[in-house]
Amino acid sequence: MAKELPPIEERSLWEDAHKMLAKAEKEGIETAWDRLLQQTPHCTFGESGICCRICTMGPCRISKKAPLGVCGADTDVIVARNFGRFLAGGAAGHSDHGRDCIEAFHAVAHGETEDYQIKDEAKLRRIAEELGIAVEGRELLDIARDLVEEFWASFGSQRSQVCFVSRLPEKQQETWRKLGITPRGVDREITEMMHRTHMGCDNDAANTMLHSARMCLADGWAGSMIATEISDILFGTPKPRKAQVNLGVLKKDHVNILVHGHNPIVSEKIMEAVNDPELIALAKEKGAAGINLAGLCCTGNELMMRQGIPMAGNHLMTELAIITGAVELIVVDYQCIMPSLVQVGNCFHTKMITTADKARFTGAEHVKFEMHNGMDQARRVVRMAIERFPLRDQDRVEIPCDPVDIVTGFSNEALLEALGGTLTPLIEAIKAGKIRGAVAIVGCNNPKYKHDHCNVNLARELIKKDILVLVTGCVTTAAGKAGLLVPEAIDMAGPGLKEICGALGIPPVVHMGSCVDNARILQLAALLANELGVTIADLPLAASSPEWYSEKAATIGTYAVASGIYTHLGHPPNITGSKVVTDLALSGLDDLVGACFGIEPDPFKAADLIDERIRQKREALGLSA
Amino acid sequence: MAKELPPIEERSLWEDAHKMLAKAEKEGIETAWDRLLQQTPHCTFGESGICCRICTMGPCRISKKAPLGVCGADTDVIVARNFGRFLAGGAAGHSDHGRDCIEAFHAVAHGETEDYQIKDEAKLRRIAEELGIAVEGRELLDIARDLVEEFWASFGSQRSQVCFVSRLPEKQQETWRKLGITPRGVDREITEMMHRTHMGCDNDAANTMLHSARMCLADGWAGSMIATEISDILFGTPKPRKAQVNLGVLKKDHVNILVHGHNPIVSEKIMEAVNDPELIALAKEKGAAGINLAGLCCTGNELMMRQGIPMAGNHLMTELAIITGAVELIVVDYQCIMPSLVQVGNCFHTKMITTADKARFTGAEHVKFEMHNGMDQARRVVRMAIERFPLRDQDRVEIPCDPVDIVTGFSNEALLEALGGTLTPLIEAIKAGKIRGAVAIVGCNNPKYKHDHCNVNLARELIKKDILVLVTGCVTTAAGKAGLLVPEAIDMAGPGLKEICGALGIPPVVHMGSCVDNARILQLAALLANELGVTIADLPLAASSPEWYSEKAATIGTYAVASGIYTHLGHPPNITGSKVVTDLALSGLDDLVGACFGIEPDPFKAADLIDERIRQKREALGLSA
Repeated sequence: MAKELPPIEERSLWEDAHKMLAKAEKEGIETAWDRLLQQTPHCTFGESGICCRICTMGPCRISKKAPLGVCGADTDVIVARNFGRFLAGGAAGHSDHGRDCIEAFHAVAHGETEDYQIKDEAKLRRIAEELGIAVEGRELLDIARDLVEEFWASFGSQRSQVCFVSRLPEKQQETWRKLGITPRGVDREITEMMHRTHMGCDNDAANTMLHSARMCLADGWAGSMIATEISDILFGTPKPRKAQVNLGVLKKDHVNILVHGHNPIVSEKIMEAVNDPELIALAKEKGAAGINLAGLCCTGNELMMRQGIPMAGNHLMTELAIITGAVELIVVDYQCIMPSLVQVGNCFHTKMITTADKARFTGAEHVKFEMHNGMDQARRVVRMAIERFPLRDQDRVEIPCDPVDIVTGFSNEALLEALGGTLTPLIEAIKAGKIRGAVAIVGCNNPKYKHDHCNVNLARELIKKDILVLVTGCVTTAAGKAGLLVPEAIDMAGPGLKEICGALGIPPVVHMGSCVDNARILQLAALLANELGVTIADLPLAASSPEWYSEKAATIGTYAVASGIYTHLGHPPNITGSKVVTDLALSGLDDLVGACFGIEPDPFKAADLIDERIRQKREALGLSA
Repeated sequence: MAKELPPIEERSLWEDAHKMLAKAEKEGIETAWDRLLQQTPHCTFGESGICCRICTMGPCRISKKAPLGVCGADTDVIVARNFGRFLAGGAAGHSDHGRDCIEAFHAVAHGETEDYQIKDEAKLRRIAEELGIAVEGRELLDIARDLVEEFWASFGSQRSQVCFVSRLPEKQQETWRKLGITPRGVDREITEMMHRTHMGCDNDAANTMLHSARMCLADGWAGSMIATEISDILFGTPKPRKAQVNLGVLKKDHVNILVHGHNPIVSEKIMEAVNDPELIALAKEKGAAGINLAGLCCTGNELMMRQGIPMAGNHLMTELAIITGAVELIVVDYQCIMPSLVQVGNCFHTKMITTADKARFTGAEHVKFEMHNGMDQARRVVRMAIERFPLRDQDRVEIPCDPVDIVTGFSNEALLEALGGTLTPLIEAIKAGKIRGAVAIVGCNNPKYKHDHCNVNLARELIKKDILVLVTGCVTTAAGKAGLLVPEAIDMAGPGLKEICGALGIPPVVHMGSCVDNARILQLAALLANELGVTIADLPLAASSPEWYSEKAATIGTYAVASGIYTHLGHPPNITGSKVVTDLALSGLDDLVGACFGIEPDPFKAADLIDERIRQKREALGLSA
């Protein structure tokens, strides 16, 4: 129960963070670490999930003295309901983002916007064909309109399964049907979760948890997957390209603009505006050498994957990026944007712009982006940033380090291309034990844990064990800063992985995108399972979110497990108050879906846990451990 | 801060409750009041809404020492997020029930079930026509299929407004459009609320509250309204009929079956099975005089409104009904079903049957009702009840009183018929000040307040002031037990109301159905507003939920206010920690939508508050106060 902050070097793995934390302290600027200290100790009822605020007969808290809520709900029911709603928050985040992508695609397909176009026609046709839409000899926009309808149907109530369930091996589809967890429609499953968790509805913890699985699968195999596929269609399917990471990507002599949030629809237009010669001229007029656009979190990932825009930092770097004093403007869409950014910005000349009606911030300026005005609004925002440049106090600017190089852009399409157009080389490498398996390390930062310590060390340990690592979301920046996202990183890998990655010219840690792009990993798993004639649960795969904080991370973890992928978490969600829910998560699910959760805060022990799991899967497939 | 229970007669207004509470005490059976005592005092962070569990950087609690959450969210944002999700739970409950109704209607329209039929063809045609569906010369099921599609669309993402927004005066629709609160699709608004309230999304309390209004309007003008309209189409539009209420409706010599929950789809079949001569014969064979079906809560309301089935009790009577010892079986669908009923049942021979996959109860037996097997399953359940009869211990049976007569069944159609087919007599009575206005008293019980004391006394006070009272949900039973739901109750009314109700032969307190049937009241308000050429906010109307406990009640209150109906609550939701949210609720909304909330625990003072509001509205319309 910390009563003071740990030393700065214990708060983060990184020099850029250390320097900015020192600057924050010197200048009296509050950060997440300070607020965490104020909020410590946390409420133990809340931490264990046994506090219920679902009706006004309460709030109720489970204790020896009061073993049941006023309605009679026990600790298992209360934990399951709270966790169900927690996961609903995560599924809703991704999936409502997916809905916005469908709306954008809809507007393009119906000719309602000139600001957005179809960039990857081949992918559009491929996916349409995959989903049974006639493609031969049809106009592109005709096909697009049918595909839009198909995607809408996956958000509705009239289908027995969301569209991309068809990507799964039939045997696995059968398992889901038997368990009653085949996701029907994204919104339906979310609403049903909110319904089930109303007082006096679902009062069987295991039953609620099964619906959690179903809802999260709707997120993974529809909400997120649709977001990814449409983003590729509209903005281009990522290909390997170089980029840079850390606060060193900010430029002292440039107008610096940060894009933050999750959805590329706004930030792609900002990027275009930043390259507008007229605006560049304006920036120069104001005394800047140019305009520099950098990303944060998943909006950063989206732009980096497709356009090579540099990444300033991950979740715990967002406040610190502003503390450089070099940021004129931060433009956000939604999710994971600390409300404190407004206040940190106010300590400097940094303006914060919100763009989505569903994510406004008290104190920020709202510039509403719509499909018909995206480009105009983007120019307006960039102009605002330029206008701020003369207000910058260069004496307060500190850009703490030089950027680190990375390679990004590994969509499944790009990965397949790197493999020569077929999965065979990868499968052969797995069979031969040169690549023993693959682990997706995903998710966030959390100031309760030393920033990026677990993200980085887990990746390092796994590649040593000849396990290919796939990263998305905030782990991208962590891995990038550690030098793991370049082909030269094979020197840190075990001999087998080094050989294969070396031959393919890819890094041993592969950047696959943003958090919704975890759907790419699901698809890759399904491709492998189909190729091998097994289910995903049979594969030597695992996932990990060592430093997660967000509801979305828990939702991702749940759809990974429900899809058959063992998932490690650095800390448990707030479920430990229920034996039923905890046992189900840590072992019971294994019998149902072939995977479960594992909890381990230490990245070295976690690597062993995961390694053991991969060993078991390999042996079951008749492969060398 | 009660450390002991209040005396039994202070816990409830009713003799049947007093006797059962005494029996529970004697027999050592725990009830909601006992658990409330154990849970007292409640957590003050939870009560004021300033505890946040939305991510695992927390949980956070706002205090002087810690004024912000780890992310930087302040008290306003935290309260708004929590309340937004609370309302989402309510909207999801009603609307997922509405979805189940659409599924049933879909199955009938597509010939997929023989167990359900269209009972009110005229209403089907009328609503189809209202929604712009061609009716002339078409087959009934053809029309039904189109109507089904129209309803599905109101749950989706592709419409700019849900279907029944068209019922509103154009001026009011314009207000909603300007505020951006026209509800688009039920599920979309719910999912968006869960998205907005994720960490780092909507961080402006007022903005979140506006979306709350939008989401709740989707519940009122679509989720609930569709549930009501379809239930009328499938099971018949209610007409005035006699029924009875209180625990006296249970019969000592009969097999007693209770239906509990909200959706009539299961209980209508149970009712048919109860009348099956073969099953009646079986009951007689087992020594019973027959089979007696009685309702609880809203499932009870649904069956009572349409079929005249007696009502055993409201929310706080559900445990007490079992404590009579006379109940063989309780069959439930979903919502507001205390999980404790399983344990109370176990103290007797009472079996609990769950019927919906989304609402299972640990310890109850699950008999899954589907569209194709409803009748078979109903017979199975009734048979189970009969088999329990010989296990009943008649020495432990106590049926505490005689039932009270009521008149039920006032759908808008029935009300219009009572008025002679037009609203004119009602409007004339309002203009003349004989009926000064109308107040809907709705919602629940809550063991924090003397059971039904406020529900009953508020109704009594209002009718004295010549205000027509409309009741739904758990207030039905309260009003019924108080003798207010019979034409003779006009003797308790003011002279004007007495004259009009007397002439029409209706009670001064009118039963309009279950909680989803509050949509009937919305429709009635819209009919009146359209007739008078004003908005709903201009009408001398109000709503009240004096003893609410459920998220749904808060959602109903919010859609009422957003629809322009001043709404009294006996106690506030958990929002008092935020000045922004509280001020908006208690006054700010008045400027936006023409109505707001009022909080008053005392029913006599509440009657004065409401009376004053009605006086203002009358004066603004140029009518005598």
